[in-house]
Amino acid sequence: MPAGTFAVSTSRTMQFSDITAQVQKGVTASTIVDGVCVVYNPHTTAGLTINEGADPDVQTDILAALQKIVPQLPYQHQEGNSPAHVMASLVGSSVTVFIENGRLQLGTWQKIFFCEFDGPRSRKVMWRIV
Amino acid sequence: MPAGTFAVSTSRTMQFSDITAQVQKGVTASTIVDGVCVVYNPHTTAGLTINEGADPDVQTDILAALQKIVPQLPYQHQEGNSPAHVMASLVGSSVTVFIENGRLQLGTWQKIFFCEFDGPRSRKVMWRIV
Amino acid sequence: MPAGTFAVSTSRTMQFSDITAQVQKGVTASTIVDGVCVVYNPHTTAGLTINEGADPDVQTDILAALQKIVPQLPYQHQEGNSPAHVMASLVGSSVTVFIENGRLQLGTWQKIFFCEFDGPRSRKVMWRIV
Repeated sequence: MPAGTFAVSTSRTMQFSDITAQVQKGVTASTIVDGVCVVYNPHTTAGLTINEGADPDVQTDILAALQKIVPQLPYQHQEGNSPAHVMASLVGSSVTVFIENGRLQLGTWQKIFFCEFDGPRSRKVMWRIV
Repeated sequence: MPAGTFAVSTSRTMQFSDITAQVQKGVTASTIVDGVCVVYNPHTTAGLTINEGADPDVQTDILAALQKIVPQLPYQHQEGNSPAHVMASLVGSSVTVFIENGRLQLGTWQKIFFCEFDGPRSRKVMWRIV
Repeated sequence: MPAGTFAVSTSRTMQFSDITAQVQKGVTASTIVDGVCVVYNPHTTAGLTINEGADPDVQTDILAALQKIVPQLPYQHQEGNSPAHVMASLVGSSVTVFIENGRLQLGTWQKIFFCEFDGPRSRKVMWRIV
């Protein structure tokens, strides 16, 4: 079962990083033409999502919305990053994309994004093809 | 690897469409009796979720809640549909359901829903069985 | 395809239950060393998520945030548990984790949690290895 890991380095507290090319690179290297690719985030203050990549404003807007959606409460976790943990559970820890003819079958506007919610940090992303 | 696509036509701005029968049709046609079915949404202002299908009020309530949860901000994306993009990332782009004896192993009250957040539109849904 | 089910008994209205050991038990019993494990929740007022397990305050904070995020509206569903249905769609019905050398490949701080949103109840969780 082909699998791999790649690094993602984030430079801001909250940020989307388009990782589509890195995932496709793994798919291409695997020589699998037909299958399902699972991408996994092993961090608890980050996530993965699939959304529009054409207009970068969409990423900005989603991050702005998430900051409004997750309330500032008197959280108990002493590290001060509870909102980032909440966002991680809202967007989720993995995405699944189909592979056809060796290519990720994303929709016209879709890209795969690593979602940093507590950066900047050095992160990693794992993928595996079924 | 059995796979397919089907169309979903939506008639309102925000709407849940029960696609369980269409997914089961694909499973039945595949003649796979034991496996995992992944359902994928290739659109960036729509999503997929699994929730209660018995009382249609649940769908109405989830949509009403999502409209309240996602704030009306001065979004930068000029198409005016940023809330739909946010909802897409909140519910997610795929669902995974087990297959046993050729049937989707949903819970008693569960149905698979296509979630339209920026309709009405002609949409498509992809599925694949592992 | 190795698969199984285990019970989760919840004692509060809203609660996270760490089910990592039960999932790992299934993986170990399967003798699969390399693969992908999908964990599935068949209930419509509960969910599954992966988040920090080291500090239990993170679980408390996520639940407190979810209660603030999901509004108290005049919901139509007469059972009074619409917020729990909304939370189920926000966190999602399944999680996917890789298996290497027979072990779930979770990140350092990650644990798999069953999320009860309408307890206390007797629940079940299904898993399957690809």
